[in-house]
Amino acid sequence: MEGKGPHAHDFHEILSDDTLGQKTPEKTERLMLELAIEKTLKQNGHKLNDIQFYIAGDLLNQITSSSLSARSYPIPYLGIYGACSTFCEALGLASVLIQGDFATQVLVGTASHYQTAERQFRYPIELNIQHSGINHHTVTGAGAALIGANGNGPTITHATFGTIVDWGLKDPNDMGSAMAPAAFKTIKQHLSDTNRTLEDYDLVLTGDLGKQGSKMLRLLFSRENFQGLERLQDGGAQIYGPEQKAGAGGSGTACITVMTLGYVLNQLQSKKVKRALLVATGALLSALSVLQGESIPCIAHAIAIEGEG
Amino acid sequence: MEGKGPHAHDFHEILSDDTLGQKTPEKTERLMLELAIEKTLKQNGHKLNDIQFYIAGDLLNQITSSSLSARSYPIPYLGIYGACSTFCEALGLASVLIQGDFATQVLVGTASHYQTAERQFRYPIELNIQHSGINHHTVTGAGAALIGANGNGPTITHATFGTIVDWGLKDPNDMGSAMAPAAFKTIKQHLSDTNRTLEDYDLVLTGDLGKQGSKMLRLLFSRENFQGLERLQDGGAQIYGPEQKAGAGGSGTACITVMTLGYVLNQLQSKKVKRALLVATGALLSALSVLQGESIPCIAHAIAIEGEG
Repeated sequence: MEGKGPHAHDFHEILSDDTLGQKTPEKTERLMLELAIEKTLKQNGHKLNDIQFYIAGDLLNQITSSSLSARSYPIPYLGIYGACSTFCEALGLASVLIQGDFATQVLVGTASHYQTAERQFRYPIELNIQHSGINHHTVTGAGAALIGANGNGPTITHATFGTIVDWGLKDPNDMGSAMAPAAFKTIKQHLSDTNRTLEDYDLVLTGDLGKQGSKMLRLLFSRENFQGLERLQDGGAQIYGPEQKAGAGGSGTACITVMTLGYVLNQLQSKKVKRALLVATGALLSALSVLQGESIPCIAHAIAIEGEG
Repeated sequence: MEGKGPHAHDFHEILSDDTLGQKTPEKTERLMLELAIEKTLKQNGHKLNDIQFYIAGDLLNQITSSSLSARSYPIPYLGIYGACSTFCEALGLASVLIQGDFATQVLVGTASHYQTAERQFRYPIELNIQHSGINHHTVTGAGAALIGANGNGPTITHATFGTIVDWGLKDPNDMGSAMAPAAFKTIKQHLSDTNRTLEDYDLVLTGDLGKQGSKMLRLLFSRENFQGLERLQDGGAQIYGPEQKAGAGGSGTACITVMTLGYVLNQLQSKKVKRALLVATGALLSALSVLQGESIPCIAHAIAIEGEG
């Protein structure tokens, strides 16, 4: 589905088989992540010995895709969990390790798979849940990146780590509405910390608020008279086309990952965008927390990134 | 059980009710973590505004105890997952944030509960699984600590983050044997990086290898003729007494946490120990990865800590 959507041309590789010949979707998810890492290392001609950390996370219980993928690399491994905010948490931590002189190169990776997420978080996949206008479709994809102290490519200039925001919403089928206040808070904090406005960015890409959450985010900004709302885009809302019947849009750890490494990097490279703000949002619920009546704690981490020259 | 074991006198508080009046053990686990944090903040007289990060993780799917606890604090939150290695991963990251000048105070916290872990990872708790000599009993406990750039108390001097080690072991009822090679590798790396020997530490406390894993770790060191094996102790192996029928010993994110914040800090304060190495080990399996025939990827992170004066 991702390879048939409006951003198909942005992605580095489109798999024709969403099982990759594996017996279970969990094994496929892990293999996708490993393939993304192999490609990243090969493309950059880097040696494993020159990489000091591997930071990864995914949606699965006990982030098994990430931990199992780390078996292949003799690199100190930091497992993290931020649901769909994982990629920006990883980029932020990688930047900390590099700017603090603890590393010169950090590998980050995430993956998600529609089938692993459906069977873990939602109803049995056999029931073939219908998409409404507010629920999400987990992105099948993986991405990896090498963050380095030197080298070519765009530069991470700021990281704003978010706090938990929980407005008491409890509907796991409307994660966009739950996450929008977290995105709002982190973006406001980032703009205040950096003394910038939305208009200082050519693109502000939120994680996967989807159509519903994006609408809510715009409403929140409008109520406080923010200008520059036309800079806002959402990875989840635009990864699938309207004909693809994907509800409110994409979600999953892979969503902002593939939209960043595909779409945003292409925009930066072609200089259509000079400065972008990535805002990965995460709904930190579990099947059990929902059953026990907990509301959904949400978070958003923001990463400012600038193109070359 | 922890409050009746040989280290009962080391712990700051022993709860008489392992439900804390909550309807589910998951809610109890979260409440224990929140109580530990409240106590930490109160003891230190610190204001939330002076703390730049909250780093937490636990064993539950999607680390819900940690994320839900973070709702209470308006502090940027980093969720991590390292199973029983979580506490040292958190201490290491906190040290990075402080030494790199990204923070002056970082709050870290972890919790685990026998009943949440049993029902998530093992058989239905109603079956009342018998302990053998090699399986573990998850520690019911919680701990929190403030890591600061200044102030009183012991000092973290080094952090050695581990790589994944997987020798192909697949038995989730013998995590000690699976984790021992990870502890071995990280300790060797730490000693090599710092040009130290085991004898440079008064105490090397591994996480929760338990009796079986500790035996294996000693064997690995002996085979390479390491000296100073009498410095090795294991939090899991000694948190329960032999009469408590706890199999190979304790495990869980709380195990090394309460043994560090209780036992090790007491040893440092009384100057019985001047320099300690904490080596938290984690078995990064999930119920699903075991069912799908995956071996157990293991990790260990080491933190060197020195007493005052």
